[in-house]
Amino acid sequence: MILTVTLNAALDVTYFVDDLTPHTSHRVKRTFERAGGKGINVARVLAALGHPVLLTGLVGGTTGQAVGEDLRSAGLRDALVPVPGESRRTVTVVSERSGDATVFNQPGPRVDPCSWPAFTRRFAELAGQARVVVLAGSLPPGLPCDTYASLVTAAREAGAVTVLDTSGPALLAALDARPDVIKPNAAEIIEVTGRSHLADAAAELQARGARAVVASDGPRGLHAVTRDGRHRAVPPTRLRGNPTGAGNPTGAGNPTDAGDACVAALAAGLAAGLPWPDILRDAVALSAAAVAAPLAGDFHRDLYEQFRTDVSVETPHAPDAH
Amino acid sequence: MILTVTLNAALDVTYFVDDLTPHTSHRVKRTFERAGGKGINVARVLAALGHPVLLTGLVGGTTGQAVGEDLRSAGLRDALVPVPGESRRTVTVVSERSGDATVFNQPGPRVDPCSWPAFTRRFAELAGQARVVVLAGSLPPGLPCDTYASLVTAAREAGAVTVLDTSGPALLAALDARPDVIKPNAAEIIEVTGRSHLADAAAELQARGARAVVASDGPRGLHAVTRDGRHRAVPPTRLRGNPTGAGNPTGAGNPTDAGDACVAALAAGLAAGLPWPDILRDAVALSAAAVAAPLAGDFHRDLYEQFRTDVSVETPHAPDAH
Repeated sequence: MILTVTLNAALDVTYFVDDLTPHTSHRVKRTFERAGGKGINVARVLAALGHPVLLTGLVGGTTGQAVGEDLRSAGLRDALVPVPGESRRTVTVVSERSGDATVFNQPGPRVDPCSWPAFTRRFAELAGQARVVVLAGSLPPGLPCDTYASLVTAAREAGAVTVLDTSGPALLAALDARPDVIKPNAAEIIEVTGRSHLADAAAELQARGARAVVASDGPRGLHAVTRDGRHRAVPPTRLRGNPTGAGNPTGAGNPTDAGDACVAALAAGLAAGLPWPDILRDAVALSAAAVAAPLAGDFHRDLYEQFRTDVSVETPHAPDAH
Repeated sequence: MILTVTLNAALDVTYFVDDLTPHTSHRVKRTFERAGGKGINVARVLAALGHPVLLTGLVGGTTGQAVGEDLRSAGLRDALVPVPGESRRTVTVVSERSGDATVFNQPGPRVDPCSWPAFTRRFAELAGQARVVVLAGSLPPGLPCDTYASLVTAAREAGAVTVLDTSGPALLAALDARPDVIKPNAAEIIEVTGRSHLADAAAELQARGARAVVASDGPRGLHAVTRDGRHRAVPPTRLRGNPTGAGNPTGAGNPTDAGDACVAALAAGLAAGLPWPDILRDAVALSAAAVAAPLAGDFHRDLYEQFRTDVSVETPHAPDAH
């Protein structure tokens, strides 16, 4: 079983308007609501691939109820832990005229320190049943920046492999706990290392504690630094110019969709014990198939099958000494 | 007792961002939520003035629950009727840099025709206990445009005086039922009559069925056509240049705040049996005091007391023949 953790779960709301004009009033023509947050999106992809998956995280208030109801209506198994306060919403305003999306991200409820031990107890139980634990997304206000470090440690003690997808101080602080895989994107990796050469920056993050680093470079594929060396997984040329979902019916094409699909593929590959080249090939194919799908957590199944045979994986560098 | 009706109740949410830049992602720095909708705002003003007030309307889903909870936490008595579906939210994005507000209005849930008879039965009971019934705001999807006409008739049969504040087809269709007072603003009156001379347009709406018409002309005051003639109520000169709440700490200054306060003053004056010049003087003073307050349904109490002595009411025209 794969366990995904979403500490800052959200209700993702999309508003469709004719056109967004700042400082005026808009009639919202239709709305679309869905449970969101990186760990939830990863769980959707894994469930769609047929993997046994359970999701946990923190939810609160009526928005948290709506998150839980949406997950259950989608057939996803959850072990969400209720906390005081109100879960956040994200509002994406889609201009139907241009197809452009404008996003408003609420920070999420401040987590009461008193409710954290209840979550960690539950997490340790669940991680004990999991082969892989995915920790994904931002930390809600109120949790210390070493929160992911403590969850990585707890997951390892419970016998699970960890995949971490977060950014900034939460990512840096987690490296000390030696997560099995981290998956920063180019912007995140530059933010935390100050280096724009992705393969070198990935190697630096490995030296700082991550056992493997899979750095996503948008439509140009993945740079990975693992125990058995450096890898480069590259999608077929015709996909490289299409980073944000042309033809996406919501107009809200978002590179993070690809990121969540990539994390799902990494988790699935680790759970199945696949070798790194196979894991990375799947991750690139699934990311590209997610970009072609309309919603976070979805992917285009036929394209995925087709892309799997198209991705090239190069392992030009010898394994590192450590 | 004054009964206010909000058929399209909302949870009004304000998002504070640094600056609104279309087609980018924004971090929402803080949020503010409050039950909204015109009838609810009118009830807030009446309660703050010390008038016995009860509010009813339609609410649904978890957003409807949040509306009810906010009303109860504000100490407002409600007899809201639950309906299937989810009450709407309005999202106001305030750019802290400029103070400008960008508003997204959801249309509201489609009202199931099966739930309407339960509301009308409840409404008739409540109207029987009321001296004045305020019907305010847009109709939610699913209700016919003569909905307010049927509620005006039911309120009259129950012995209550009606004040109607709506626009467009819902306003026009209600005229046949002869509401006691309608309160269109300049934009609404031009929309339904095609006339930009407010006093003449008000007289036309009276001829088409309204017993009295109080047309608000923003900071320039009110034009009223009543049984005892035409009136013009004008705020003191120094207020006329301040239509949208300069100094409003939310930055979301909104002329509709003044409209809701105006309706509250009309309802209070009718309930107290005041003569029209006194009602209109209060309505102008309370509108101006609401513009100076930060939130819909609030007003600046000291300014209100001061403005009441400053408003001039002219009755230059003789009563109409009918």
